[in-house]
Amino acid sequence: MEYRYLGKTGLQLSVLSFGSWVTFHKQIDDNHADELMSFAYDNGVNFFDNAEVYALGESEKMMGRILKRKSWDRTSVVLSSKVYFGSRGKENKPNQTGLSRKHIMEACRESLQRLQVDYLDLFFCHRPDPNTPIGEIVWTMHNLIQHGKILYWGTSMWSAEEIMSAHKFAKEHNLIGPVVEQPEYNVFERTKVEQEYAPLYNDPGLGTTVWSPLAAGLLTGKYLNGIPEGSRLAMPGFEWLKERWVQEEKVRKVGALNDLAKQLNVSLPTMALAWCIKNPNVTTAILGATKREQLEENFKALEVVKVLNDEEMGKIEEILK
Amino acid sequence: MEYRYLGKTGLQLSVLSFGSWVTFHKQIDDNHADELMSFAYDNGVNFFDNAEVYALGESEKMMGRILKRKSWDRTSVVLSSKVYFGSRGKENKPNQTGLSRKHIMEACRESLQRLQVDYLDLFFCHRPDPNTPIGEIVWTMHNLIQHGKILYWGTSMWSAEEIMSAHKFAKEHNLIGPVVEQPEYNVFERTKVEQEYAPLYNDPGLGTTVWSPLAAGLLTGKYLNGIPEGSRLAMPGFEWLKERWVQEEKVRKVGALNDLAKQLNVSLPTMALAWCIKNPNVTTAILGATKREQLEENFKALEVVKVLNDEEMGKIEEILK
Amino acid sequence: MEYRYLGKTGLQLSVLSFGSWVTFHKQIDDNHADELMSFAYDNGVNFFDNAEVYALGESEKMMGRILKRKSWDRTSVVLSSKVYFGSRGKENKPNQTGLSRKHIMEACRESLQRLQVDYLDLFFCHRPDPNTPIGEIVWTMHNLIQHGKILYWGTSMWSAEEIMSAHKFAKEHNLIGPVVEQPEYNVFERTKVEQEYAPLYNDPGLGTTVWSPLAAGLLTGKYLNGIPEGSRLAMPGFEWLKERWVQEEKVRKVGALNDLAKQLNVSLPTMALAWCIKNPNVTTAILGATKREQLEENFKALEVVKVLNDEEMGKIEEILK
Amino acid sequence: MEYRYLGKTGLQLSVLSFGSWVTFHKQIDDNHADELMSFAYDNGVNFFDNAEVYALGESEKMMGRILKRKSWDRTSVVLSSKVYFGSRGKENKPNQTGLSRKHIMEACRESLQRLQVDYLDLFFCHRPDPNTPIGEIVWTMHNLIQHGKILYWGTSMWSAEEIMSAHKFAKEHNLIGPVVEQPEYNVFERTKVEQEYAPLYNDPGLGTTVWSPLAAGLLTGKYLNGIPEGSRLAMPGFEWLKERWVQEEKVRKVGALNDLAKQLNVSLPTMALAWCIKNPNVTTAILGATKREQLEENFKALEVVKVLNDEEMGKIEEILK
Repeated sequence: MEYRYLGKTGLQLSVLSFGSWVTFHKQIDDNHADELMSFAYDNGVNFFDNAEVYALGESEKMMGRILKRKSWDRTSVVLSSKVYFGSRGKENKPNQTGLSRKHIMEACRESLQRLQVDYLDLFFCHRPDPNTPIGEIVWTMHNLIQHGKILYWGTSMWSAEEIMSAHKFAKEHNLIGPVVEQPEYNVFERTKVEQEYAPLYNDPGLGTTVWSPLAAGLLTGKYLNGIPEGSRLAMPGFEWLKERWVQEEKVRKVGALNDLAKQLNVSLPTMALAWCIKNPNVTTAILGATKREQLEENFKALEVVKVLNDEEMGKIEEILK
Repeated sequence: MEYRYLGKTGLQLSVLSFGSWVTFHKQIDDNHADELMSFAYDNGVNFFDNAEVYALGESEKMMGRILKRKSWDRTSVVLSSKVYFGSRGKENKPNQTGLSRKHIMEACRESLQRLQVDYLDLFFCHRPDPNTPIGEIVWTMHNLIQHGKILYWGTSMWSAEEIMSAHKFAKEHNLIGPVVEQPEYNVFERTKVEQEYAPLYNDPGLGTTVWSPLAAGLLTGKYLNGIPEGSRLAMPGFEWLKERWVQEEKVRKVGALNDLAKQLNVSLPTMALAWCIKNPNVTTAILGATKREQLEENFKALEVVKVLNDEEMGKIEEILK
Repeated sequence: MEYRYLGKTGLQLSVLSFGSWVTFHKQIDDNHADELMSFAYDNGVNFFDNAEVYALGESEKMMGRILKRKSWDRTSVVLSSKVYFGSRGKENKPNQTGLSRKHIMEACRESLQRLQVDYLDLFFCHRPDPNTPIGEIVWTMHNLIQHGKILYWGTSMWSAEEIMSAHKFAKEHNLIGPVVEQPEYNVFERTKVEQEYAPLYNDPGLGTTVWSPLAAGLLTGKYLNGIPEGSRLAMPGFEWLKERWVQEEKVRKVGALNDLAKQLNVSLPTMALAWCIKNPNVTTAILGATKREQLEENFKALEVVKVLNDEEMGKIEEILK
Repeated sequence: MEYRYLGKTGLQLSVLSFGSWVTFHKQIDDNHADELMSFAYDNGVNFFDNAEVYALGESEKMMGRILKRKSWDRTSVVLSSKVYFGSRGKENKPNQTGLSRKHIMEACRESLQRLQVDYLDLFFCHRPDPNTPIGEIVWTMHNLIQHGKILYWGTSMWSAEEIMSAHKFAKEHNLIGPVVEQPEYNVFERTKVEQEYAPLYNDPGLGTTVWSPLAAGLLTGKYLNGIPEGSRLAMPGFEWLKERWVQEEKVRKVGALNDLAKQLNVSLPTMALAWCIKNPNVTTAILGATKREQLEENFKALEVVKVLNDEEMGKIEEILK
């Protein structure tokens, strides 16, 4: 496994990491989750990603149970959660979502309880909250760090401008600012990571823990011949992904990428993952998986990334153009 | 229920809220309080207001017992208390009242114990304390926030100048300033909310949790024909309200407002409440009640506020002139 | 009892207060201490003064036992301790005295244990410590306040310049500075309180808790005819007081003051105490006592202070000249 | 024993101190460690030095057991640990070494557990970590102080420039900077202590807790005739010391120093130690020992230092030239 420093911090994350999103509680049970997490951990994955909203808290509870069962050294793993959407779904009441001091504090407490740990390594603002002043957010995250409840904080799906406003407030008030952003990143979703955040990587420093490196499964190639029953895109609640991605144009590009992958003697998802982590501004790409074989295949990207030289990257660029 | 952000914070309060003042322990018992609070909560009220001085701590104890009994999600309610007058009445000794660091710290601890909770959402300075420097107050409130004992702090019955002195100190010393004021507000008491605080609403930001929206019962109309036995104005300790309000001038205006309410097919208190919350600078109007029917009637104001168009507001203004 | 604000803080101290120095453990037992403290408390005394060095911790232990026994409301009393001399006497090792962060932190913890309380209201640096930088002291006291272990901090026997250096550091680093000084003050020892500290009372603000208001017993008049066996000046360890005070000059003045007291129909110590607290910059005068009758006599000073008009004060000034 | 203030702090360290490095767990057992620590403590040593990496945590555990067994007053000892190398040796994973906030926090928690104490007096960054920004390190150490987990922090083997960057950040962000450096110092290793750190001793202030005052045993004279079996230089893992020191040039100088020592009627190690602590910028020289007799001999340096006048120091300088 390769490890990268999270932006300008001293924290190291495995370049491939494991997220509970989509799968935990919804698609897999404890034993299954245990098998996947153990395989990931044994292969050097140290970052395990969560959010209060994933399966409305059930993902965190499941990961908490696995962590307890495995008794891995707490210092060997980097655990995250995210606050914003709440964990009560349609039952969410005012102050049970968003980024008010009240919700951030209460969400942190609840995530720690669900995960059965004393502190989170990373705590993300899952979305920007225009209704809460940036100062309230920064102060609250700073306080959580002061009290050892979280070690670092970051954002997810914030604009560069929003991230910079947090840094500006932090700097002016001598508080600890955000160090990481969790954006979507894959061959079809490149603007934020490659352009919008570019001015931030060096100063003030920004790590990225990118999600959907396989474009919600599109880059697994399994949708080349339509959407099979039981796949993620066919699951209730993921219709938006379907509408968003399943377009002729993209399917055509996937086909071309698939051909290139064959030439390189690698699978399409492996090549797509390798393409993601070839970007040095990507700290880690978060994997979701329901089968151990998927992870096994994914981990090959660590080797394939070395194969992706300028020439091959040029070909990919040509296809995506 | 409608929810409003408390000034510039990310905290949302129901526009109608529930206070333990006057009624808890003095007029109603636990079962009665349970019925009222449950009805309020079920109708979307999320803010429950208290003070150390209400019934000398007994109001908080009663609310604490109800909260414990109901087991509502702590994150679904916004609880407040207030410090200044002490909880020992005539037995109050030096440092058991006021806003010294000693009393603020000790009062907070005691309110938390009485309410049986780990933290307050809002903590008010119930009055200004000219004997304590503003810096001591701001530092202490800031510390309570740092330690998670309170989430936001505010003032009650402070002048705009006093509030601004707190903000000035907070800004100069990089501390968290007050975000809310609890003033009296009703058709007869408008100056503070409409004029004095006007420069503060936008910057630095100020929410208001107004009390006595029905002018201590005067706007219920029940005093149009004199003060009945058993009503609040006839209770010992409330003589000042009686002297203050029961004046021919006001009674005449109440009569005229009552006539207007009849034209609108609403009750006088409902119209008076609607008039209060029509002001966008009012975050919430705190209701006191001894009967469920009162609350039921009060909640109609949420609909009536939409009926109060410019024309009707003009008529009210004409009456009050 | 009269109460005064401690300098510019919001904390109120009884103008006459009670100290454990000299008497606790050395001269009196628990029952005796109980009687004296109870009498003081019942007469409105709210400030009880201690130090780690008094009877090498035994004074604090005794006061702790009495406080536990009496179960007075913690909020009704102001408790202090002092750090510098250590509590192990000749057994004191390096870092068990002085004002290093280590000793301040450890001394505070030990005083809290001996007094059986969760926090001190006042914590004094018993002497200046030229070997510890002022920044280390201010940071440590500030931290103790942040953590609720102490509420206010101050100094004892520091020069005005030393006090100001603490304020300067506190201001420059946004920390909470000292608010009180405990100097010696009586008709024979006036310079610090009346001249040296004069520029500090108003800005930055300084309260004083003066000790030895009766000049180590000299102003009780009991030494007019020599030093009796069993009096404080004859106790081992107090020889320095003897040498310092027992001088013909002073004895002569004591005689003249005694005559004046007779003219006013008050006792000499009562007049001397009244003279002390007539100074508005004296927040409180700390009494030591072994007999309830002494305290009873001392409390008369609260009345006598009203008798000390300009004319009488002028006479005293004439005698002391 | 002589005590020195640690740089500009108020903390006093015995000029000769005791380290668990090399010996604890590897060479000696509990009873043996007890004997050595007790002898040191009884002779006035108050500083006991540790690191997470020493015997991979076993040194700290052993010292913790001895401290528990002896029940010495916690306030009478100065305990240190160091963070950087981790305590899992070859099993160290990412984030289990270095100076990230994660590792510093987790290392501190683990050292406290191993030592069975509530706080460390000194906490060292065992090496600089170019991969962690200085701000992350300073903030984390500051926080540990705020929470009473450590009292002072410092560095080991940092360059003056690195130390100053920590001070600069601390000053600009109003945080507590490092106060001590633990460098190697002996007649053969003088540059850092005598030249590089020279500008720092006075401002901002720097104490030094020097290690290897006897040049890893070379100055005991036992290697004059080669390296005996069982000596430190012959132990596995210390080959680098062997290569570094055992050079003809040094052996020649050791011989000359040995001759001078004989002239002064002292042993070579005693003279070498005395030479170390004659430097006033050395706060303490850390001793490692496997035999009580060694310590006994070492402590003679406290007398010998007085013998080392300008003339004798000149002779030493001549030899080392």
